[in-house]
Amino acid sequence: MIFRQLFDSVSGTYTYLIASRQGGEALIIDPVLEKVERYLQLVRELDLRLVKAVDTHLHADHITGLGALRDQTHCITVMGEQTAADVVSMRVAEGDRVSIEGLSLDVLYTPGHTDDSYSFLMGGDMGRRVFTGDTLLIRGTGRTDFQNGDPRQQYDSIFNKLLKLPDETLVYPAHDYKGDTVSTIGEEKHFNPRLRVKSVDEYVDLMNNLKLPNPKMMDVAVPANVHIGLHQDEIARRGWALSAKEALALCGRAKIALVDLREKAEREKHGVIPGSLHAPYPDLEQNIATGGVLHELAEATGKRIVFYCAYGERSAMAVEAAQQAGIASACHIEGGIAAWKKADGPVTH
Amino acid sequence: MIFRQLFDSVSGTYTYLIASRQGGEALIIDPVLEKVERYLQLVRELDLRLVKAVDTHLHADHITGLGALRDQTHCITVMGEQTAADVVSMRVAEGDRVSIEGLSLDVLYTPGHTDDSYSFLMGGDMGRRVFTGDTLLIRGTGRTDFQNGDPRQQYDSIFNKLLKLPDETLVYPAHDYKGDTVSTIGEEKHFNPRLRVKSVDEYVDLMNNLKLPNPKMMDVAVPANVHIGLHQDEIARRGWALSAKEALALCGRAKIALVDLREKAEREKHGVIPGSLHAPYPDLEQNIATGGVLHELAEATGKRIVFYCAYGERSAMAVEAAQQAGIASACHIEGGIAAWKKADGPVTH
Repeated sequence: MIFRQLFDSVSGTYTYLIASRQGGEALIIDPVLEKVERYLQLVRELDLRLVKAVDTHLHADHITGLGALRDQTHCITVMGEQTAADVVSMRVAEGDRVSIEGLSLDVLYTPGHTDDSYSFLMGGDMGRRVFTGDTLLIRGTGRTDFQNGDPRQQYDSIFNKLLKLPDETLVYPAHDYKGDTVSTIGEEKHFNPRLRVKSVDEYVDLMNNLKLPNPKMMDVAVPANVHIGLHQDEIARRGWALSAKEALALCGRAKIALVDLREKAEREKHGVIPGSLHAPYPDLEQNIATGGVLHELAEATGKRIVFYCAYGERSAMAVEAAQQAGIASACHIEGGIAAWKKADGPVTH
Repeated sequence: MIFRQLFDSVSGTYTYLIASRQGGEALIIDPVLEKVERYLQLVRELDLRLVKAVDTHLHADHITGLGALRDQTHCITVMGEQTAADVVSMRVAEGDRVSIEGLSLDVLYTPGHTDDSYSFLMGGDMGRRVFTGDTLLIRGTGRTDFQNGDPRQQYDSIFNKLLKLPDETLVYPAHDYKGDTVSTIGEEKHFNPRLRVKSVDEYVDLMNNLKLPNPKMMDVAVPANVHIGLHQDEIARRGWALSAKEALALCGRAKIALVDLREKAEREKHGVIPGSLHAPYPDLEQNIATGGVLHELAEATGKRIVFYCAYGERSAMAVEAAQQAGIASACHIEGGIAAWKKADGPVTH
């Protein structure tokens, strides 16, 4: 397994690059914009393919690298379903999994620092690891005084979820300011000074009286991190987009091939548009190349390829790639299946 | 296994705390003075016993934590035999091992950054790791322009020793300034820009033309790091020391029990004083306590306990501890077996 902890000394942020093998798929957790070139260099050097970039929550102290990584690698951007970030291409919730080749992370909803704070749990032969974002820090916890933070929720996330993990679970936070790189659940249970409280009320009191100044970057970082979505407008301007209503009107006609780019788990959870084909986004490149199934389908049948996904982000990237690969009919449903459902489009499970 | 990488952001130094199990013996590599309290806190929290503190070389950019850790834990301080540091309690050379309960590090002499630069290689079920000090950095190498640095030697250390390790060996350096925490030998072989040279002469040219300013801390750190020895004078002032000559004169008399505190490997390599007993330093506490073998020996025989070790450092600590434990006769040979040999004392192998 490849496991790299990378540090941004300006914001004190830890970023994690993970892959099951050299030459395979990789994911990155909590990337920092200023460090994107270093991440991409490492991805190239280790012969990896970055397929997912995950933020544990909407950060207030640095600008996320999610947008830049997506622009440069076409990776899937992942955040929790509560996030205020405008459009990420995959939203996850408690009980979901974030999977890449050879490994997957269990998704734990751990609000409190923000209302979109998630933790991610990884198993594997090198020991269980949990990425705790700003929820549980090494000998600390993330502040709860802005961005819908809530000390009561955080107490619950920490005491009733994270501290229930086995003691030997390694804890990898999104930040450290004192020079620690890793801890364990057992250690935090016993030695984290913030967790030496007798009740949730005592914790709420403690957190409500920290009197911390706002993060230096907050006024810049939060708005920047909210707007990381792709410019689906640009795709529309080029005539490659259908609104959900337009798509509904075309639906059932012979000359349309609807192609779902989402993963199996997303399809099972959120349903699919009846009659649509399934061609997962990570396989896109081979599917749209000459000789690929979508390329052949478009040529052989003359059907218009209409991509869709969860929110229109992956499908917008797919349209651009398909057009470049010579599939001139390619377009997508703007806003994805979320918009489709809002327009009362039918969905099957 | 417990493996902790700790960071000092002021000097960009990585320190490593290692133990085979919670509750067992630990060693630390390249500790920084300002961080000693954090290390000791972690040692307590993990229920460890710090028995060895190792510096990969005499540092010029921070003050070592070796002296403070020895003062507070009575651990053995370890450096290479070439070091200018006045007195460390154990000096190692190529081919030696630094051992604690459950694990041991192979000692590799890798001069070039300084003439006392060593690397330490660790095996184990979690993969092979090499601690490279300032010899091999992540995508860099340590400067060679002071403290008897020598680019030609460094080329040899890197190309003919470190890069001969298996590609998957994890590389843990003493410093990083760009946010990396770990690399591999394979990666450095392929992607370290300093190592893209065709010959040793090209490397020498490269290193001789870096034109780096001296480290900010150099004028403070080097003298401080040279003088980390215990005050053996103080032990002498209290009447608890014998010079090697005085010890020689007493030798063979019935009322003396010479006690060698060194490890088995040191005894085999450097020889022992004929007729001396062996009671390794890590077991000292139990041996000198009431009921312990040395305590009983002193009481039952009335013999004077004369400790010795390599350079008099461990034995000075032992004298102090033995006096506190009520062994009023305890003293030591100042300067250890090194001084004994200089005084032409007999040694057997």
